[in-house]
Amino acid sequence: MLNQKRIRDFGVVIGSLQPGPLNAITDVAGVAVGHTTLSDGRVQTGVTAIVPHQGNIYKEKLIASSHVINGFGKTMGTVQLEELGTLETPILLTNTLSIGTAADTLIDYMLERNPEIGHTTGTVNPIVGECNDMFLNDIRAKSVTPEHVKAALADASPEFLEGAVGAGRGMLCYSLKGGIGSASRKMNLDGAEYMMGVMVLSNFGMLSDLRVNGKAVGQQLKREILQDREEKDKGSVMIIVSTDLPLSERQLNRIIKRAVAGLSRTGSIITHGSGEIVIGFSTAIKIPHQKPGDLLTMHCIHEEDLDLAFRAVGEATEEAVLNSLVTAEHVVGRDGNERPILMDLIEKFNISLS
Amino acid sequence: MLNQKRIRDFGVVIGSLQPGPLNAITDVAGVAVGHTTLSDGRVQTGVTAIVPHQGNIYKEKLIASSHVINGFGKTMGTVQLEELGTLETPILLTNTLSIGTAADTLIDYMLERNPEIGHTTGTVNPIVGECNDMFLNDIRAKSVTPEHVKAALADASPEFLEGAVGAGRGMLCYSLKGGIGSASRKMNLDGAEYMMGVMVLSNFGMLSDLRVNGKAVGQQLKREILQDREEKDKGSVMIIVSTDLPLSERQLNRIIKRAVAGLSRTGSIITHGSGEIVIGFSTAIKIPHQKPGDLLTMHCIHEEDLDLAFRAVGEATEEAVLNSLVTAEHVVGRDGNERPILMDLIEKFNISLS
Amino acid sequence: MLNQKRIRDFGVVIGSLQPGPLNAITDVAGVAVGHTTLSDGRVQTGVTAIVPHQGNIYKEKLIASSHVINGFGKTMGTVQLEELGTLETPILLTNTLSIGTAADTLIDYMLERNPEIGHTTGTVNPIVGECNDMFLNDIRAKSVTPEHVKAALADASPEFLEGAVGAGRGMLCYSLKGGIGSASRKMNLDGAEYMMGVMVLSNFGMLSDLRVNGKAVGQQLKREILQDREEKDKGSVMIIVSTDLPLSERQLNRIIKRAVAGLSRTGSIITHGSGEIVIGFSTAIKIPHQKPGDLLTMHCIHEEDLDLAFRAVGEATEEAVLNSLVTAEHVVGRDGNERPILMDLIEKFNISLS
Amino acid sequence: MLNQKRIRDFGVVIGSLQPGPLNAITDVAGVAVGHTTLSDGRVQTGVTAIVPHQGNIYKEKLIASSHVINGFGKTMGTVQLEELGTLETPILLTNTLSIGTAADTLIDYMLERNPEIGHTTGTVNPIVGECNDMFLNDIRAKSVTPEHVKAALADASPEFLEGAVGAGRGMLCYSLKGGIGSASRKMNLDGAEYMMGVMVLSNFGMLSDLRVNGKAVGQQLKREILQDREEKDKGSVMIIVSTDLPLSERQLNRIIKRAVAGLSRTGSIITHGSGEIVIGFSTAIKIPHQKPGDLLTMHCIHEEDLDLAFRAVGEATEEAVLNSLVTAEHVVGRDGNERPILMDLIEKFNISLS
Repeated sequence: MLNQKRIRDFGVVIGSLQPGPLNAITDVAGVAVGHTTLSDGRVQTGVTAIVPHQGNIYKEKLIASSHVINGFGKTMGTVQLEELGTLETPILLTNTLSIGTAADTLIDYMLERNPEIGHTTGTVNPIVGECNDMFLNDIRAKSVTPEHVKAALADASPEFLEGAVGAGRGMLCYSLKGGIGSASRKMNLDGAEYMMGVMVLSNFGMLSDLRVNGKAVGQQLKREILQDREEKDKGSVMIIVSTDLPLSERQLNRIIKRAVAGLSRTGSIITHGSGEIVIGFSTAIKIPHQKPGDLLTMHCIHEEDLDLAFRAVGEATEEAVLNSLVTAEHVVGRDGNERPILMDLIEKFNISLS
Repeated sequence: MLNQKRIRDFGVVIGSLQPGPLNAITDVAGVAVGHTTLSDGRVQTGVTAIVPHQGNIYKEKLIASSHVINGFGKTMGTVQLEELGTLETPILLTNTLSIGTAADTLIDYMLERNPEIGHTTGTVNPIVGECNDMFLNDIRAKSVTPEHVKAALADASPEFLEGAVGAGRGMLCYSLKGGIGSASRKMNLDGAEYMMGVMVLSNFGMLSDLRVNGKAVGQQLKREILQDREEKDKGSVMIIVSTDLPLSERQLNRIIKRAVAGLSRTGSIITHGSGEIVIGFSTAIKIPHQKPGDLLTMHCIHEEDLDLAFRAVGEATEEAVLNSLVTAEHVVGRDGNERPILMDLIEKFNISLS
Repeated sequence: MLNQKRIRDFGVVIGSLQPGPLNAITDVAGVAVGHTTLSDGRVQTGVTAIVPHQGNIYKEKLIASSHVINGFGKTMGTVQLEELGTLETPILLTNTLSIGTAADTLIDYMLERNPEIGHTTGTVNPIVGECNDMFLNDIRAKSVTPEHVKAALADASPEFLEGAVGAGRGMLCYSLKGGIGSASRKMNLDGAEYMMGVMVLSNFGMLSDLRVNGKAVGQQLKREILQDREEKDKGSVMIIVSTDLPLSERQLNRIIKRAVAGLSRTGSIITHGSGEIVIGFSTAIKIPHQKPGDLLTMHCIHEEDLDLAFRAVGEATEEAVLNSLVTAEHVVGRDGNERPILMDLIEKFNISLS
Repeated sequence: MLNQKRIRDFGVVIGSLQPGPLNAITDVAGVAVGHTTLSDGRVQTGVTAIVPHQGNIYKEKLIASSHVINGFGKTMGTVQLEELGTLETPILLTNTLSIGTAADTLIDYMLERNPEIGHTTGTVNPIVGECNDMFLNDIRAKSVTPEHVKAALADASPEFLEGAVGAGRGMLCYSLKGGIGSASRKMNLDGAEYMMGVMVLSNFGMLSDLRVNGKAVGQQLKREILQDREEKDKGSVMIIVSTDLPLSERQLNRIIKRAVAGLSRTGSIITHGSGEIVIGFSTAIKIPHQKPGDLLTMHCIHEEDLDLAFRAVGEATEEAVLNSLVTAEHVVGRDGNERPILMDLIEKFNISLS
């Protein structure tokens, strides 16, 4: 976004549903995304914050769910998310070894805004996801500080950069530069318009597997540049899903499980070394922290209408991964390590995407 | 197989690994497949049996695992499969309303071969999967009898037909005629050759979503024949995975979860109405029913080597679905219902697959 | 019930909540239970049917959930129950090798009442649970017929017998005669009264482990009658939970998971050979099979109020197990096999229960 | 331990199996436990470290598993533990709001000992469990520092204190002072002796529910001291299980699921507000971080022999909870808050435990 060229700008149209105005996770009203990007020689890393709504999320929780595609990852907070079906903090993404700092700062952030936590009410469940950026970033340096985490939260806005920014700064995808990508889909249901938004932190895949809207672009590129040299995939992907559809947590879980369809269509074989985790939330209903006087009233769509949401989440995930490749700028990091930029290669070898 | 033309015969090569000699689930030594096909006007259904090894599987169980992609299905036996990690019967596939008959007959089959069951040792856990063939088959007629089930088990052989046979007789896939399909992949690991076999009972998907090796063939066909008329997907898919890799049940579970990558690459969005269930087994180790004198010794590959198996199962699943379409013959069933044959359309509209 | 003496009649009061009028699963309005009991020499088995409400359950489904305490069992139908969170048939219980017959007959029962199944709408997901009664019953004879299954469904009534009846005819519990037992608890919440009902099919445990309201009665009895001779536990337990609390399927799942607390307090160590499965449903909301014009409206309690339900389900489960022991009559079965009746031993050895 | 009086010293013998020499989690060879205890007015908290073996656990991982009894908790690291079935760090326990600090310090601890992490090999998965000690401790003060965490790791030893120490400093159990407790059981199998060890961080339950070996001690105490005043349970329990039995991760998971039986027998109803999580490991097999030249060879017991382990883990968990109560000293914390000591009440009201 913000004047970045994205995959649609190259004539590639994924699926049949229409994107929202920003074609991003933030097309769901209230959702905001912020970054802190660290770029200094061996330090190429950062933090990305997803703020699910603009109120006090601890007092007004959202229905949420998580799904583990591949559990070789260190994401925090999913045990409670699954048990209670609710999200009560923003979601942070960062590098694998900075999750402790991120979690600790997110706790502070919540304590500041909710003086009753730990005194007159219970505690709080911070949600932190991660990918391993050790190829470009000196991950052992643990460069992310509490100030970086707070800055990402403060930066949150409906419009945000994609590519080599925030937690995406040091990430690789299909042996190319990856990082943050996003997309969205509109869903018309019984006369109302709903939105499905997806954001990925892409850090997975081998070049030869890359497909762009079905086309085996990775095979072509591999012949041009790699000559049978290929490294093992040690990556991962975090997928954050937002929607304003009224849903039960079970229905939301069914939806976020379908992100894997979009992921697979970009070519992923879901390798061993890749923590691949989806976290989703619906903004349609706010669950009060304090028990109200009466029963809670929930609305949800009929199960048969889920197919539209299934299609939306698959398409948006596929497009978000491609956007993370297309928007990524060139990064030289630890030990001079670097990876090509997809759009450079496309141009250099004159490859047609559409 | 058995002189049927398959997707490779049309120049479509899925992935980078080599198939086994039969390019089928039965490339894993000992695995056999049998069918009973019912085809008589309104009755278009059947039974398919997968026999996992040629010994007494109750006395020598196999490590096994199941995975639910979408649980809108009635597959029996997975509770125990997951708890104990072992398979102790052949696997049967049939239409949804015949699972009771299939299970009951499989119990009889096991009782006959194991006189101690229920007298001096415990009971037996029959595994039966299903898809709904109500469009072509009068499923309410419940035409499958115990004799049909026994005949499928007796028919089991390394070479077997694909397409509109056995449980696949009445199935649809991508709004075309589907059914049974299979494929396999060789895996070279530390100097040894292992095999990964997949068989699908395909009964899912809408025409416009079909992709052949990435190519949006379904979009082309839809423009030609459907003119915006499209029915809702009410299908499902059963995926059976065999391998001779030495694996723990946890490793096997990780492998079979990756079948979804192949499925997705054929275009599936994993619709609501589609029970999609994977059952896998490894023939590498036989677990004795009776406790031996000593500890069990198990071998398994190192976790890092799983990537090869992940690639193999995705490729074989994608190819097996395509084989189910390519091999299916034309069937006219209940109320004159019918669906086109993929290869007829390819020829008629002169569509290039490769 | 029906004039049977139960554990409360011996002065044993489990927990602190009050039971409903019948102290049974059928205290939840609309729930009915029926049995067919087979008792003829080597044949000591049967069928028990739980009818969740008195309308058409296929057209008006109930929110439901299942939980596997120990998965060494063959219960059918839980895959779909978990995916969709709904129950659309009565629940049947029978012996392990009769599940095929039970499922097949339940399918017929549903087809008769719903002519659109398999013609104009999808199929149906039969729920069948089982325990292994091979000690008292010639389970290999597979004596349960479709007529027996239908008779159990037809017999369903709010008042029903416990003990050695229906599916409980041949079951053992704590090396004593077990079978069907039930109990209930009233829950007062925000001025309204709700009900929690439990029914067990008890077939687990070794005598020395039995505890009655904490008292190590099994240890006493073992000293009197067994003299260090004890058989291995090869049993199982089915636990059916009904409630009229308005709940999401996630909340219901949290409740039924707590049945294990009551089970454990009767002394169970949850042995390997014991399939232990809980299925629960709430009658508070009916989910229409056909999509209505608008969003569904659901009510549910606030998460904090679940503690009352957690206490209720634990207490009712503990009492239901004890009721299955107390109400069981003496049965001589296969090969003259028999097991003592708890109340005979209590009297004979003059053991105080309260 | 270390001259503390424990529940056996009061004549209470739980179950039928014999404890190991220390009757503690550290009876499994190589396991060590260390504490840092903070006690200063409003600050009543700490850290407890469980070191699973004395080698380099990152290079020689252990088979491990986790089980969520109730997921209202913030335990970190279980996603990867479940996916890979291995433990590669010590396990830390602390208060809920200090998990970020604990995780971050554990990452540092692992980086120091493994210079290749993040440079030539992947990252590391820290395991941190927690309970909420806000009643006695000013949890918002987040008093645990990296030095406290390191000190707990450095303090690890086979003999360790129980009660109001380490992470247990501020915890409550059954409305009494709780905290750290441990117990073990010997298992004789095929001529060999194996060990099962359990350690709990107890912070759950209401006084009226407490049972000591079946006896309703909590009811008696409640009548004496509480006069119908009772607070809601806002607690949790962490249960750590060690064994030297050779097991697959699936078998280990089956074992640790049975901890709930022991927990239930102390009277727990598993309340909503209580995060209850079990983490177990077996020291029998070391899984190398780097792929060896050949297949891995694993040994495991036959499934039928698991019953002995099921009994052991239930008994040890029940006794560990009671030990946490019996060994706890009196603590006055935040705002002068305090809770009685079980042994004071037993003496004062002259209640017989045996």
